[in-house]
Amino acid sequence: MPSEFDIIRRYFTRPVKRALLGVGDDCALMAIQAGMVMAVSTDMLVEDRHFFSGADAALLGHKALAVNLSDLAAMGAAPRYATLALALPDADEGWLAQFAQGFFTLADAFGVELVGGDTTRGPRNISITVMGEVPPELALRRDGAKAGDDVWVSGCTGDAALGLAHLAGRVRLEDAALAYCLARLHAPSPRVALGLALRGLASGAIDVSDGLAADVGHIGERSGLAVELRYADLPRSPALMACADDQLVRECLLAGGDDYELAFTAAPDARARVAALAGVAGLLLTRVGSVSIGEARQVCVRDADGKTMKIDSKGFDHFGS
Amino acid sequence: MPSEFDIIRRYFTRPVKRALLGVGDDCALMAIQAGMVMAVSTDMLVEDRHFFSGADAALLGHKALAVNLSDLAAMGAAPRYATLALALPDADEGWLAQFAQGFFTLADAFGVELVGGDTTRGPRNISITVMGEVPPELALRRDGAKAGDDVWVSGCTGDAALGLAHLAGRVRLEDAALAYCLARLHAPSPRVALGLALRGLASGAIDVSDGLAADVGHIGERSGLAVELRYADLPRSPALMACADDQLVRECLLAGGDDYELAFTAAPDARARVAALAGVAGLLLTRVGSVSIGEARQVCVRDADGKTMKIDSKGFDHFGS
Repeated sequence: MPSEFDIIRRYFTRPVKRALLGVGDDCALMAIQAGMVMAVSTDMLVEDRHFFSGADAALLGHKALAVNLSDLAAMGAAPRYATLALALPDADEGWLAQFAQGFFTLADAFGVELVGGDTTRGPRNISITVMGEVPPELALRRDGAKAGDDVWVSGCTGDAALGLAHLAGRVRLEDAALAYCLARLHAPSPRVALGLALRGLASGAIDVSDGLAADVGHIGERSGLAVELRYADLPRSPALMACADDQLVRECLLAGGDDYELAFTAAPDARARVAALAGVAGLLLTRVGSVSIGEARQVCVRDADGKTMKIDSKGFDHFGS
Repeated sequence: MPSEFDIIRRYFTRPVKRALLGVGDDCALMAIQAGMVMAVSTDMLVEDRHFFSGADAALLGHKALAVNLSDLAAMGAAPRYATLALALPDADEGWLAQFAQGFFTLADAFGVELVGGDTTRGPRNISITVMGEVPPELALRRDGAKAGDDVWVSGCTGDAALGLAHLAGRVRLEDAALAYCLARLHAPSPRVALGLALRGLASGAIDVSDGLAADVGHIGERSGLAVELRYADLPRSPALMACADDQLVRECLLAGGDDYELAFTAAPDARARVAALAGVAGLLLTRVGSVSIGEARQVCVRDADGKTMKIDSKGFDHFGS
């Protein structure tokens, strides 16, 4: 059986180029480019909570990093470094090799260097901290939205939740739709290029991980503004459009979670520039609502007739029922 | 029951002064002082592995941060920021309040700002990433030792392990000795001031967390040098000196782990300056060995007669037997 040190050496030690010092010392060392600040985010994924026991290790390596890169994207930061803390029930080398392959394939795609971490025995748990760089005046903070701004969303929300609904037996998807939804669930693509392109253009941004309504609500809260979403304008994937269960569609679109799209606000006079980004980023960008002076607490979702719709969920809460 | 967001708001959201943006956005933002680089380290503590189920929550909050600050100390970095990812079986507010109190008391003592994190349900797991600043040319790397350098250690090693040996029924300590050893085990003091004072003085450094022999061995490995320790010169606390079990004493001193002292190398002409630091840092600093040209693999421990002693353990390995 490999030791903790063997595991780190075999699977998680890679030469670094940008960092001054990577894995193998008490700390990693990294400089920051002039004019930039460090953006840092941490996410923890727990077995049986965020992923199924027996989940594909390569996909898990991808997703664990992807959800963190999504946070950097939502800040408009360029990904640079990551640390990985890993608790494992045993030193299964097949699992480790696959996990590392999924992790590093995504890391390499975004130029992310693994600079440190920790490996220990315990119930399976993956905790990643990512670091990126952003000019502070261009960071896409949640508190920057202005009254009158549009609300935009990238891609489509609800697909990962629809895939989960299929797995839970609540809906039966066609094969192609299922494959699409499970890819969205297990292998999300962090919207890094979009986040970088939105520097200086978006007034506020967040990544959609807990459900669209809850997450745009956080922009409202932090900016002290009311948020309104137009339900009919929300983009829907073909898989979701084919679903006949209107209640489920609504839940998926507004409260599904695990979307890893960006929701952001921008001034109305930026509409043409935002729309032009869709081509650059190769992503659907849809104007779905607006922010205005008013009560920041609850996001208002209006149907096609302008009537307020009832939202059933406030977003995913790990300590909720 | 409090929600995930309530928990973060109530227990883990504090105003930040140094950071540009703290808890509550997709990322935290922080600048680095001119001439400095960021030093980063991550540690994960797992219930029933690193701490007992039912362990005092305030002590756990202290220790989880302390073991990370010890890594910054070993790099000569000034502690600045931390992120905290926490998996908990339930949202026990009494536990959370105590954990936060232990964490923030130590954080405040070292000027560390909590800038981000994640809270989720799961088997209890604490993963902390700390960030500090250090001028890159003064960082205390493991690979900087030079042939002929002395090996030094701060404080005493073996006390935490002696406390554990008592808990395991292997030895019976007097009350005062037990209290001392358990304080060393549960509430280690990271040697931050010493690490800062060693900038420009130590050629290599490591924090002693897995056992003195194994950890100074890492300096040897990374520096490509042989390391020799003089057993008779190793500092011993009164608690350890009172222990009649020579075999246990040897294990504790050389391979105990959980010491969170600094082991470091320095040139012989720095002896007076290092010795003078003991007063400043309020810490015993003892010269316990030397490094020389030779096989880096195995640390050689010599007894009072100059004979090589057999070392029983290679340091703590989380996947070892």
